[in-house]
Formats: sequence, C-alpha cells, structure tokens
Amino acid sequence: MIELYHCVDARSFRALWALEEMGLAYRLHLLPFPPRLFQPDYLEVNPLGTIPLMIDGAVRMTESAAIPQYLATRYGPTALVVRPDEADYGLWLDWLHRSEATLTFPQTIVLRYTRLEPKERRVAQVADDYTQWFLSRLRHLTRTLADREWLCAGRFTMADLCVGYALLLARTLDLEHKFSPEIAAYWERLSARPAFLAAQAAQGSAGRGF
Amino acid sequence: MIELYHCVDARSFRALWALEEMGLAYRLHLLPFPPRLFQPDYLEVNPLGTIPLMIDGAVRMTESAAIPQYLATRYGPTALVVRPDEADYGLWLDWLHRSEATLTFPQTIVLRYTRLEPKERRVAQVADDYTQWFLSRLRHLTRTLADREWLCAGRFTMADLCVGYALLLARTLDLEHKFSPEIAAYWERLSARPAFLAAQAAQGSAGRGF
Repeated sequence: MIELYHCVDARSFRALWALEEMGLAYRLHLLPFPPRLFQPDYLEVNPLGTIPLMIDGAVRMTESAAIPQYLATRYGPTALVVRPDEADYGLWLDWLHRSEATLTFPQTIVLRYTRLEPKERRVAQVADDYTQWFLSRLRHLTRTLADREWLCAGRFTMADLCVGYALLLARTLDLEHKFSPEIAAYWERLSARPAFLAAQAAQGSAGRGF
Repeated sequence: MIELYHCVDARSFRALWALEEMGLAYRLHLLPFPPRLFQPDYLEVNPLGTIPLMIDGAVRMTESAAIPQYLATRYGPTALVVRPDEADYGLWLDWLHRSEATLTFPQTIVLRYTRLEPKERRVAQVADDYTQWFLSRLRHLTRTLADREWLCAGRFTMADLCVGYALLLARTLDLEHKFSPEIAAYWERLSARPAFLAAQAAQGSAGRGF
C-alpha cells in the first residue's frame, strides 16, 4: 500500500489530493509542522526532513508536483494526464512545474519571514518582494483563465490540482482577497471536487498546519 | 523551427543544452539580463518577461525544467527520458522538479539579494539563509552520487541536465568551493558532454549573464 507522510495543508496536500483523485489505497502518516522540529525521528524515515514523502514499493518521492504526474501516469490510463500525443502536453508540463517553482516557492518565503521565523529574524521587505512577485504570477493565471475553465486540454488534470494547492496556500497566507474573479471562480471549482473534499476529510479539518 | 529566447547562463540554458542533446534545429534569440529591464519590447513576445520562452509551433513553454522533458518525450524515443515502465520513473520526475524548485530557486534569492538589487535593498541575512538551505540540499545530492555516476536509470538523462544547470548557477554564485568531491566529479562529467560544450558555444562564451 502507498504510504504518504503529510502535514495539514502543506505542499504534501497535492499528493493526498492526487491519491483521492486516483481512488488509490494509501496509509496516511500525519506529522506536526515542521516535522524537523516537532517530530525529529522523522529524519530516520526521510533525512531531508521535508514533506511530502511518498513510498510506493521501491519508489520514494519527495517533490509534491512530481507525485501527481507519477501516480496518474503509473496507475492510469486516466484523463488526469495530458498525453504526449495531445496538443497541450507541453502546456501541461509547464503548469505542473510552474505550480511549484513559480506559484508556491515565493509564498514559502513569505510564510517564513512573516510567521515561521522568530520575530527578530522576520524581514518585511523580503516578504513584500515575494508577495508582489507571486501576485504578478497570479495575473498570468487570471489571463489564462479568461477563456477556459481548466488549464489544459479542456478538462481537469493534475496541473489544475497542483496549481490548486498554490491557491490553498495563498488562502492560508490571507491573500485570498487578491484573487481576481476568474481565480475565485476557479478556486470554487477546484475546492468543490469530491476528491478535494475527501483529502480535506482525510487530514482532518481540525487544525491548520502553519 | 523551434525558437528559444535565452540569456547567457540563465535558467534557459537548460533548454539550450536540451536542444543540443536532442540534435534539434533551433533559432536562438539572445537577450540581455534581465530582459524586462534591458529589452522591454520582449514583453510583447512574453508578457511574463521571463526566460526561457520556447516556441515550437503552437506550443509555448516558459518553465526551464519542463522543456527538456517535453523535447525528449515529443522528439524521442531517446535514452534521455526515463519511461513510465522503468523502475526509476518516479525518481526521474522527482529530480526534474527538484532541480528547479529545490536546487535553483533558493539560489535566485541569493543572486537577488547579493547582486541584482540596488545596494540599499540587499539583505545579507536572507542571502545567507538560502545559501545554507541550498547547501543542505547539495548534501542530499552528494549522498545520492555516492553510489552512481548519473541520477537515474544508470545513464545520463534530462534529470542530470536539469540538476547540472543548478550547479552551473552555483559556480556563477562562487559556491563551487562548497562542492563535495562527488559533486565536483559529477560537474566534470556533465560539463564535458559535447552537447554542453555546443550549448556554451552557441550562447557565446563572451560574457556572463549576471
């Protein structure tokens, strides 16, 4: 059975949601955030101390935007994948990467320098720089959504799931009021999916990770 | 013909190197860095102002670690891809994503707050935080290379190319002296590849991008 190490509403939510979209059986290990500090024996399982960690037999993965592509390709065929012979294949890969490198990483800098670091190490300028950077990338998402419901191939795919997590994180950072109407409507579509709701239920709706 | 918008030694080097590995014909558009400031008409081609931009017929891509996977999958079959039926497929996707989200993005923060920002906006603490963060991820790469020449599937693949660019950037940031012997030897293997040398020649060895 697939094992997933996860913290509530952290990046690993992508893997949890993807498992639910695929209807795969899994065992969930819920950790306090950040596990490096609050569950140090996790370092024996994953020396990086990061989440997610997904173990599928001999396969171990730690990159949250790679795991959905892996699961959907390995356990498909499924319409959650855009196949190499489809016109939107390149666009799909682009959005999978953009969801993390461009839409999530800047937010983790904001999170770090506004909440996670002790007060004397917080840096308002840098948090503001990367908030602006993130918002400029959100405008690109708004332009993309002007003529479509989902990002690629005319259907919900793992790219939407991966970008959806970046929006979930933005809500955690109280940036939801910056969402354009297009993005707000997209978020409504994403968060109404049965697999999203099942993933939320699986992690318990009790508390926030951060 | 494939078109590539590129700045010397910037992330878009991944796409340039990948085109050379694949032996594909392309037209190179060399821009000053950052193009947003020094070539503002580039915004008409790419409203994001970022590089790379790769145009392949109707396909437009801007994520540097997605383009090598696209090119190798679309224009294969090639051993530069790890196929879904291979044991290392998940590991391959993981390294493709890690090369950018985990090994490159932290360095761009260091670059920004040590070189690109005007002096009064430089933030030594943040540059140091993300240098340390990057070095901790390099240690993971060192552990991985302890028992292998290439990251996945016993051969050079696009994952090595993508991680190789993160090492090129680290050299630009004068972090090469932090390379372990394993990483130094890996860099020697990477930078001796004929396609790497052809990509260096194509961009001109005249100047650095940053």
